[in-house]
Amino acid sequence: MEYKLREDIFQQAKKWIYEAGRDIRQKINGPLNIKTKSNPNDLVTAVDSSTELYFSTNIRNAYPNHYILSEEGYGDDLDSLEGTVWIIDPIDGTMNFIHQKRNFAISIGIYHDGIGEIGFIYNVMDDILYCAKKGQGAMKNGEYLPRLQDHVNLNEAILGLNHFWLCENKLVDEKVMQTLVKTVRGTRTYGSAALEFAFVAEGILDGYLTMSLSPWDIAAGIIIVNEVGGITTDMKGNSLNMLTNNSVLTCHPSIQNSIIKDYYKKGRK
Amino acid sequence: MEYKLREDIFQQAKKWIYEAGRDIRQKINGPLNIKTKSNPNDLVTAVDSSTELYFSTNIRNAYPNHYILSEEGYGDDLDSLEGTVWIIDPIDGTMNFIHQKRNFAISIGIYHDGIGEIGFIYNVMDDILYCAKKGQGAMKNGEYLPRLQDHVNLNEAILGLNHFWLCENKLVDEKVMQTLVKTVRGTRTYGSAALEFAFVAEGILDGYLTMSLSPWDIAAGIIIVNEVGGITTDMKGNSLNMLTNNSVLTCHPSIQNSIIKDYYKKGRK
Repeated sequence: MEYKLREDIFQQAKKWIYEAGRDIRQKINGPLNIKTKSNPNDLVTAVDSSTELYFSTNIRNAYPNHYILSEEGYGDDLDSLEGTVWIIDPIDGTMNFIHQKRNFAISIGIYHDGIGEIGFIYNVMDDILYCAKKGQGAMKNGEYLPRLQDHVNLNEAILGLNHFWLCENKLVDEKVMQTLVKTVRGTRTYGSAALEFAFVAEGILDGYLTMSLSPWDIAAGIIIVNEVGGITTDMKGNSLNMLTNNSVLTCHPSIQNSIIKDYYKKGRK
Repeated sequence: MEYKLREDIFQQAKKWIYEAGRDIRQKINGPLNIKTKSNPNDLVTAVDSSTELYFSTNIRNAYPNHYILSEEGYGDDLDSLEGTVWIIDPIDGTMNFIHQKRNFAISIGIYHDGIGEIGFIYNVMDDILYCAKKGQGAMKNGEYLPRLQDHVNLNEAILGLNHFWLCENKLVDEKVMQTLVKTVRGTRTYGSAALEFAFVAEGILDGYLTMSLSPWDIAAGIIIVNEVGGITTDMKGNSLNMLTNNSVLTCHPSIQNSIIKDYYKKGRK
């Protein structure tokens, strides 16, 4: 992507994100009009929808030849990542948004011909913006995040992991995942994939893994984690496909191979 | 406890907590001198020790007839809760302190003849102080926390739970705990029992449960949760003993019975 255009898009997107954040903070104590999607715990609110509409309207006005891939229905039906594609989750961590009124994020990844160029993860209630441009490092509220430390041992790592993967499920042997929990130093669950990516980028988690996520959950995080020296693949170690759901492992490079080979590959179904 | 004395102790303790917090924030980026205790993941630092020494020195100077029950060795060897007892964890969430440099708390519960009179949980890096006096409500940074909502259904609850209890362990059948995970709306793990108590008091978790904690992990939290209408017992529903380790369930009253009867009692070993 051409340098000046990317700068322009970056500044525009940042402005829209801060504006959307202000709007969410105003609405959060009002009626949220909560509905369910695929199951009783898959929640969506009027704020998810209105925030996505805000972004899609602005993008379509400013960049009519760009595409949008997004969670709540205002995007395009894409079968290719050619051109410039905004991959948007207006509220990542909707359960936290509803139940906690914090610990959720706006997540926007901007891809050009399939390559992640710009990533934003905005922790709305804490007013913390993580962002990155490909090849130019990642920032947290305007300060560069340091590169991840040189080496992490798996038995001293802290992993982000949903409890669900320790229970019987269709995608991975829960017993193998339990062994992983007993191997690492600690495990955490925050309820927002985007924020867990941001925490990997900050080095406060050494990895985050899950068996199925949508592109908008991860599009921004991949770019931000990559800029500090972290790595993101599916649980087999392959590149992620931004047009489908993926299993996801984002982590410090020194623990990636073992998590895949010694744990996931022994447990996958 | 006599009213004026309790006010005096409350103000003193608050002053010491803020002072200790400032000191911790200054030391956190220096060398932490990390050691292990009972196992390689049971960590302690020079800051845990110096913070506890700071409290114990001040308490012994100001209140020479009070007792101290604490984690790092500067307390008394007590076999009774008679008199006034300060139950102190200088840094609850030491793993977060070391690896994340946030998400840990100073936890102080002050008991008189076995009754919890004053509780403080101080999220040091976010500068958020939760506190309560028995019968006078709980506060977060000087503002009263509202009473918990009238009713919570277990299948809409968010629980704090360590992943460890979903893996084979000596205290509870992990399969029963897995059923609980699949029943509730969501689960979270933050890595600090004291903060998880505070989150229950705020209503952003509906419950937090664990199979073994020390008195200093819970002494403050019990008092704070109680003041907003939450309830804390061991996993059998019995009162907690502040002189030993306990299993712990702190939660909204409407989900307590089911967690104990339909899950824990079917799974305990």
